[in-house]
Amino acid sequence: MIYLDNAATTRLAPEALKSMLPFLGTRYGNPSSDHALGRSAREAVEKAREQLARRCEARPEEIIFTAGGTEANTLALLAAKGEVITTNIEHPSILESCKHLRQRGIPVRILQCDRQGIVSVEQVKRALSRKTSLVSVMHVNNELGTVQPVEDITELCKRRGVLLHVDACQSFGKLPLPDADLVTINAHKLHGPKGTGALIARIPVEPLLRGGGQERGLRAGTENVAGIVGFAAAASLKNDSGRMASLRKRLERGLLALKGVGLNGHPEHRAPHIANLAFRGLDGHELVGHLDAMGICVSSGSACSSLRKKRSHVLDAIGRTEAFGALRLSLSRYTTSREISRTVPSVSEVMRSLRLLR
Amino acid sequence: MIYLDNAATTRLAPEALKSMLPFLGTRYGNPSSDHALGRSAREAVEKAREQLARRCEARPEEIIFTAGGTEANTLALLAAKGEVITTNIEHPSILESCKHLRQRGIPVRILQCDRQGIVSVEQVKRALSRKTSLVSVMHVNNELGTVQPVEDITELCKRRGVLLHVDACQSFGKLPLPDADLVTINAHKLHGPKGTGALIARIPVEPLLRGGGQERGLRAGTENVAGIVGFAAAASLKNDSGRMASLRKRLERGLLALKGVGLNGHPEHRAPHIANLAFRGLDGHELVGHLDAMGICVSSGSACSSLRKKRSHVLDAIGRTEAFGALRLSLSRYTTSREISRTVPSVSEVMRSLRLLR
Repeated sequence: MIYLDNAATTRLAPEALKSMLPFLGTRYGNPSSDHALGRSAREAVEKAREQLARRCEARPEEIIFTAGGTEANTLALLAAKGEVITTNIEHPSILESCKHLRQRGIPVRILQCDRQGIVSVEQVKRALSRKTSLVSVMHVNNELGTVQPVEDITELCKRRGVLLHVDACQSFGKLPLPDADLVTINAHKLHGPKGTGALIARIPVEPLLRGGGQERGLRAGTENVAGIVGFAAAASLKNDSGRMASLRKRLERGLLALKGVGLNGHPEHRAPHIANLAFRGLDGHELVGHLDAMGICVSSGSACSSLRKKRSHVLDAIGRTEAFGALRLSLSRYTTSREISRTVPSVSEVMRSLRLLR
Repeated sequence: MIYLDNAATTRLAPEALKSMLPFLGTRYGNPSSDHALGRSAREAVEKAREQLARRCEARPEEIIFTAGGTEANTLALLAAKGEVITTNIEHPSILESCKHLRQRGIPVRILQCDRQGIVSVEQVKRALSRKTSLVSVMHVNNELGTVQPVEDITELCKRRGVLLHVDACQSFGKLPLPDADLVTINAHKLHGPKGTGALIARIPVEPLLRGGGQERGLRAGTENVAGIVGFAAAASLKNDSGRMASLRKRLERGLLALKGVGLNGHPEHRAPHIANLAFRGLDGHELVGHLDAMGICVSSGSACSSLRKKRSHVLDAIGRTEAFGALRLSLSRYTTSREISRTVPSVSEVMRSLRLLR
């Protein structure tokens, strides 16, 4: 099997699993318990927090562990006390939460990305007003792999005294994180366990989950100790972006050489691990299905929309018409050169057979 | 080490760990992905849902997986469109969320339990009015182990057309669950993994986390597949309540025979696994510390309040003055008769030495 759907989720790193096992075994205490077993769990959570903080260039006390990226994004948006500015290619957890904010009377302005999936700092600048409370922009788009100019947006927002949230689920561990007020990261996109994420909060936030006082009162609920420890272990793996980027470029070159194939997203401002290609006259879901039958796991957009075979809001946003099917191929530290070499002819073969069927 | 703090958290069952390992290994797909690895994860989640539903006497489609009890409780309270009625011994995730509801203009009525930690169905009946939207009562109190008359309250609420939420985190797997509109359960209190819970929702609910459409749109976020599978495996273990209850009774008898020791909570309406005892003239935290030094893990109240050495709102609620220190000793399927036999003389020894220090 060739797994090229690492933007959907990644394989748990053996190093992460190894770090988790004691907490799925004998170190099962509740970090809030005031006895040896509780303290042992508490120490593990705090050590993981420090480890993760070093990787995020954050302070340990800025990290709020959550159950994943969606919860961290939802928590971040609670900081909005007035108008929110975001873009039309954000993750559904931002866009759906923004819809809900709007229903509750908080104005939301949605900026249109250009045809390469980029929102410019000038667009954000023009949109800012005295009413603006928070800007939320993702670092790397999960479908296209395009990188937004978050450093410039961070600088702009700081200068204008507007809060900035950056969803960095796809960039964490691959690109340096921006110094934004609120940054979402999660574990399962970088070989950590599913069900764990964090919000890096450099400003006071209001809790989404209230109760037992965990996470300095900002996120109640017994800590997922094994998940948190595994998250930190996965985040501490050596950055492998250079190798990944060169494999991705080779993959893109190979596919772009096929007839009727184009690139979705920006040609240069791209994350190392995500390729998204447009196939003229072919259906993305059909391409995915045929490749799946050949043992190659890819997607036509985000995982969220895959099962429902919904049309991608991101492809709509960049003006890709239905005349083009899309394939997202996303790599990880475990992707091999041989897998890339095998994928290009397989895609070519599937294209041929699908075109014959037309 | 003797672990008698199972109301705080429990050891992961080997059966649960075994069921989880494939999903921490090769079956790492995202359940929303439309390829072999995704489908394999999706099947596991749906199988776990069915397995869990059977144990809850619920339908699979009534189960919404969450990151734990606190999230499920928070989600349940979103169903309140008007006045909420609850009790003064609920879990902090209910009481703190109710405070927040109140701040947002939703009236909350908090019923006072009696000195044995019981709220009567008559009290609930008297409190109901045309304004009442939702009643939230826990099944088993996490500190005292007292069992509330949730069957009668369920019947009452059904008759009166008022929504009922029951927090069953401490009772699930030990007592039959009530047929309430909303029931909270979680994994780590019954030898499942931390970071997984569920809300059994027999009525339509509004999501707390919006986005990717997971859990039929009711709880967005990539599913914690390993956690969900481990939860179902743990919940499927044979009920061991009879043995636990008899060990608990022996423990209580042994401790109540010591001078200055009394029972906290109701003498009969009790869960099988929780004993809570009052020690005249002694400090609960000191008792915990000395027992900890002897290798016995217990608590003086809930885990949440342990680290901060906060006075228990539950003991306050039942009118236990500070003249009495409290110890909660909570058992599990792994508690042995020998451990109980060793605990009683250890507590007696600690009491003696603490009294000498006075």
